[in-house]
Amino acid sequence: MLSFESDYIMGAHPQLLKRLSETNMQPQPGYGNDEYCMSAAEKIRKACGLNKADIYFISGGTQTNQLVIDSMLRSYEGVLAAETGHVNGHEAGAIEYSGHKVLTLPQYEGKVRAEDVDRYINDFFSDENHSHMVFPGMVYISHPTEYGTIYSLSELEKLSHVCRKHHIPLFLDGARLGYALAAEESDLTLKDIARLCDVFYIGGTKVGALCGEALIFTQNKPENFITMIKQHGALLAKGRLLGVQFDTLFTDNLYFKISENAIEKAQKLKNIFENHGISFHIKSPTNQQFIILDNEFMKRLAEKVRFSFWEKKDEKSTVVRFATSWATTDKELQQLEAILNDMK
Amino acid sequence: MLSFESDYIMGAHPQLLKRLSETNMQPQPGYGNDEYCMSAAEKIRKACGLNKADIYFISGGTQTNQLVIDSMLRSYEGVLAAETGHVNGHEAGAIEYSGHKVLTLPQYEGKVRAEDVDRYINDFFSDENHSHMVFPGMVYISHPTEYGTIYSLSELEKLSHVCRKHHIPLFLDGARLGYALAAEESDLTLKDIARLCDVFYIGGTKVGALCGEALIFTQNKPENFITMIKQHGALLAKGRLLGVQFDTLFTDNLYFKISENAIEKAQKLKNIFENHGISFHIKSPTNQQFIILDNEFMKRLAEKVRFSFWEKKDEKSTVVRFATSWATTDKELQQLEAILNDMK
Amino acid sequence: MLSFESDYIMGAHPQLLKRLSETNMQPQPGYGNDEYCMSAAEKIRKACGLNKADIYFISGGTQTNQLVIDSMLRSYEGVLAAETGHVNGHEAGAIEYSGHKVLTLPQYEGKVRAEDVDRYINDFFSDENHSHMVFPGMVYISHPTEYGTIYSLSELEKLSHVCRKHHIPLFLDGARLGYALAAEESDLTLKDIARLCDVFYIGGTKVGALCGEALIFTQNKPENFITMIKQHGALLAKGRLLGVQFDTLFTDNLYFKISENAIEKAQKLKNIFENHGISFHIKSPTNQQFIILDNEFMKRLAEKVRFSFWEKKDEKSTVVRFATSWATTDKELQQLEAILNDMK
Amino acid sequence: MLSFESDYIMGAHPQLLKRLSETNMQPQPGYGNDEYCMSAAEKIRKACGLNKADIYFISGGTQTNQLVIDSMLRSYEGVLAAETGHVNGHEAGAIEYSGHKVLTLPQYEGKVRAEDVDRYINDFFSDENHSHMVFPGMVYISHPTEYGTIYSLSELEKLSHVCRKHHIPLFLDGARLGYALAAEESDLTLKDIARLCDVFYIGGTKVGALCGEALIFTQNKPENFITMIKQHGALLAKGRLLGVQFDTLFTDNLYFKISENAIEKAQKLKNIFENHGISFHIKSPTNQQFIILDNEFMKRLAEKVRFSFWEKKDEKSTVVRFATSWATTDKELQQLEAILNDMK
Repeated sequence: MLSFESDYIMGAHPQLLKRLSETNMQPQPGYGNDEYCMSAAEKIRKACGLNKADIYFISGGTQTNQLVIDSMLRSYEGVLAAETGHVNGHEAGAIEYSGHKVLTLPQYEGKVRAEDVDRYINDFFSDENHSHMVFPGMVYISHPTEYGTIYSLSELEKLSHVCRKHHIPLFLDGARLGYALAAEESDLTLKDIARLCDVFYIGGTKVGALCGEALIFTQNKPENFITMIKQHGALLAKGRLLGVQFDTLFTDNLYFKISENAIEKAQKLKNIFENHGISFHIKSPTNQQFIILDNEFMKRLAEKVRFSFWEKKDEKSTVVRFATSWATTDKELQQLEAILNDMK
Repeated sequence: MLSFESDYIMGAHPQLLKRLSETNMQPQPGYGNDEYCMSAAEKIRKACGLNKADIYFISGGTQTNQLVIDSMLRSYEGVLAAETGHVNGHEAGAIEYSGHKVLTLPQYEGKVRAEDVDRYINDFFSDENHSHMVFPGMVYISHPTEYGTIYSLSELEKLSHVCRKHHIPLFLDGARLGYALAAEESDLTLKDIARLCDVFYIGGTKVGALCGEALIFTQNKPENFITMIKQHGALLAKGRLLGVQFDTLFTDNLYFKISENAIEKAQKLKNIFENHGISFHIKSPTNQQFIILDNEFMKRLAEKVRFSFWEKKDEKSTVVRFATSWATTDKELQQLEAILNDMK
Repeated sequence: MLSFESDYIMGAHPQLLKRLSETNMQPQPGYGNDEYCMSAAEKIRKACGLNKADIYFISGGTQTNQLVIDSMLRSYEGVLAAETGHVNGHEAGAIEYSGHKVLTLPQYEGKVRAEDVDRYINDFFSDENHSHMVFPGMVYISHPTEYGTIYSLSELEKLSHVCRKHHIPLFLDGARLGYALAAEESDLTLKDIARLCDVFYIGGTKVGALCGEALIFTQNKPENFITMIKQHGALLAKGRLLGVQFDTLFTDNLYFKISENAIEKAQKLKNIFENHGISFHIKSPTNQQFIILDNEFMKRLAEKVRFSFWEKKDEKSTVVRFATSWATTDKELQQLEAILNDMK
Repeated sequence: MLSFESDYIMGAHPQLLKRLSETNMQPQPGYGNDEYCMSAAEKIRKACGLNKADIYFISGGTQTNQLVIDSMLRSYEGVLAAETGHVNGHEAGAIEYSGHKVLTLPQYEGKVRAEDVDRYINDFFSDENHSHMVFPGMVYISHPTEYGTIYSLSELEKLSHVCRKHHIPLFLDGARLGYALAAEESDLTLKDIARLCDVFYIGGTKVGALCGEALIFTQNKPENFITMIKQHGALLAKGRLLGVQFDTLFTDNLYFKISENAIEKAQKLKNIFENHGISFHIKSPTNQQFIILDNEFMKRLAEKVRFSFWEKKDEKSTVVRFATSWATTDKELQQLEAILNDMK
């Protein structure tokens, strides 16, 4: 069935599978010590404008979030995040499982504001009883956010400034980073992110890979990080699976090109919805579009195309998500349009 | 360079890559709800002679060990394992990270004896102070063991009997299960294992897959196990990556056929070593061969072929491991033989 | 200096110290197996109207909260609590340290509403993605709350009803339970609480003891709870220290009598503040009184009497807490009044 | 009944109860900020010959062990301990609960040898695969050991030297430290211990206090340690309970005097056993005596005096423990002698 359910419904970009096949019978050392992990890391450092960053490839986003937070925080520190942040609501307690509290901040279309971070930390340390409370030890943001919105250069600079002022790392979850960078409204580059964040990851799973996220420590990495990956059960024996994929994604700008496809298709998708008088829950410049459907209409539509439930809007209507991706085609958009026309 | 370093130096069996390519552009739901995970699970149930077992696909062995132990034990219970068990020494504390102690038993060529399990549990509960101690809550065995040795049907029956007598689950780590089943000395079938163990896994990473282990709960699975996988950071968005691979491995007996290749090549490898007067640290019927090399000779050999350091034998000699796999060829063995001949 | 800083600034009620001295040189078994723990448990069961409840004595409140939550929840479950609940903000992450998330609910003068619990759980299970989220596994309330407010019988009945409907335990943190029961506005008895909650504790530390909380499982206790106490590092060798104190507190209604003193003195304290035109942040019927002070006045007052900072009210004023206790005397209140008169 | 069951069967030394009563109605700040904690810490620093050590009072030994190990180790580090160490076998997994593995070393009458520590660490770092293993991050010893034996000055110097060479802390569990220092064979002083260990504690629970251990960081303490105590649920509101007791124990050498009583009585106890032809399992110079009893005789004796089961010796006999303490009297020893005479 036609599906806009998520950006991970397809396999991998064919170029990645091709390279996996071509390199398949070369013996390579395990655990990320293969030549493709090395090469991919070097290409990513270059794309980020970094000379020395430590780069690791991890199989998925929740795993990466848990690892970063657990390895960079002291045991009594928590992570500041928007109440809508992925680490707060949709990771089944993976952060708490590793012993850390998620300290929530107000969200504005999914985003965190620098002034809220500053106030939280100032209030915390001016509270006489703060030694009985969880210390704020890191700021987590997602870019794009869970609502598809993006930070501007100025917003990220402010967040970075506040974090550095308070000596805590700024961590950017880039599970869909390609789509944020490709957004027309974006004035942020990968190099800006590398310069302003202390740690971030470039998402592969949702941007053309079978699995995998490239984790970049722009400043200091935690000591013995490989051991921490292993301890979390997250160290793949065949690290080449991730290395080959990221090496391909960062060859000839493939990562950026395929991200652009998702944005172009999202724009067309928005036009289709607008033309059919469907309203938006939020203005998203990236590949996730959140629309409001009448419950009756939603049920009928769900018989013909797949999409995701997001949240109840009110008694009569529901917010649902349609996602484009690197793989979305014009043909799929035409099919959706035909379905909507038929339902009029 | 010629390499017998491990059984995970190559990519995947080409048939798996082919199927990944063929199914690549089919939209599939995420998180293991795709049709390939379903189909693979059904084929595995059939191969195991089980009607109802719950089956999950996890990306790697340490992750699987941590998940099984953490989800099946109460917080104050530990897992009984051989002191040489993988969970005790080579998982960077992944079990303790999840809060559980590994309770060690003596090992006999890497194996655990039923009578030691029985004695441990009897002694534990007869100790007046046992409420101040970690309860034995599960038995972990690896098959083949870390030394390549295998349990006989009779040994596994005894272990199963003891575990059921004491109402604790028997967990078999089958990271290299194919190689154990294919061993000539083996009188154990997959159906025996499914009948005698409460939980076990069929290793993919070391037996032809890019990554992935098929985890089988033969009795009761922990409630909401998907949530526990997510909480551990171990839930792949594109579950199809594992589903397609295991569906292929369990089509036309591919898993068993490629396992046999490793055993056949290991036999030839043993012959080569014997012919060159090299002695064995242990008699292994599977794909891992542990030989004793004079340190000087070892250094020279290491310039021409890759293998793994295992442990110091004494001041002058070292135990090293040579591993064959589904991918090992006769040509590679001939190359090794030529190298050894040259070094005489 | 005169102090209303908290209800734990004094030692113990003299009767408790007397009994500790009288029983001091009797040999007693350790770890809660002494005759005083047994006797205290029996007296508490009687006071609660329970025949069979399991009762344990734990050294402090945070320890007890952590133990109850960790022992009664599955690893992927969290605890529902008011955002102002002690477990959420003032236990330095003790709940997350044991792996569990605190799932916050709106608070109404520190209290949780049954309808909010019901809605949370219904929404949770109707969310298609709930397997990726932390399951609500328990409701935590404090009585009196962190703001000194108390639940009515009707409110507690509704909470109990909702919890039982959804098959999750209701846990009442009674660190200051005596003061709630003694409040004039209270229509709840200890027997009501024992009937309506699945687990709760009767606070000793803040109600006349040197340390200790009596933890009561009214329904089923977790298996091997002693082992869990030990595992948490919370098992006192000399359990008699807690047993003797609670045995004394529950002899001749001492616990209730000394609680009444705190309430009587709190009423007088309120009158003094009212007479001096000081306004209240919240209407509290128990021993903690939250008043609003002009910052300048607050500084001057702090030179003459101790109280606790609570929170910033606005730029010019602050909420502070004055606490009475079992030990507060009329003389102390007269001193306070004199100080306030002097400052006019 | 006459009891030599343990050194925690009695309450507290009467002098401690007296001081608790005398100071009872003085208002004191909570959480260890009272004047008695301050004063006790100063007296302990002086007794230790330390100028600046950070000192904390914790309610019990397992709690202290868990806190020290968890706060000083990185998450992927474990603690080296004798296989008979308390942290390994008798703390219900408290160390693993906090995420750390106990790495066992051979024991020699309960003691660890410096050369074994050195070899373990050297072997660890020379193992090519050590990044997949738990790092040795600390050495734990108990003094006296679980078998009542003590380290000599020379042994402790060697351990300290090895630890400092490898840059890991040496942690001494002094739950019964007074009895070790008072032993006639001892050539170690408290100042030696403070000079040679990085962290250690002076046990109160088993040496005259109702509860409490004085924890001393001789070098650097972990940052925000109070928050870690709170997070572990271990911060007593009325820290004065521990402060007053330790202040009293370290006034007029009381701690040392009462420890001497235990040793003097243990010597008489040994004589009694020797005179009755009862043999010893181990030669213990401190207050715990381990004797071997014929099972039949043991049962008869248990009807008249309490002692502790230790371990099975063989089919016919059992090792049991008799403990003296600060409270043991000559009269009790005479009663024991009379019982043994009667049983001849």
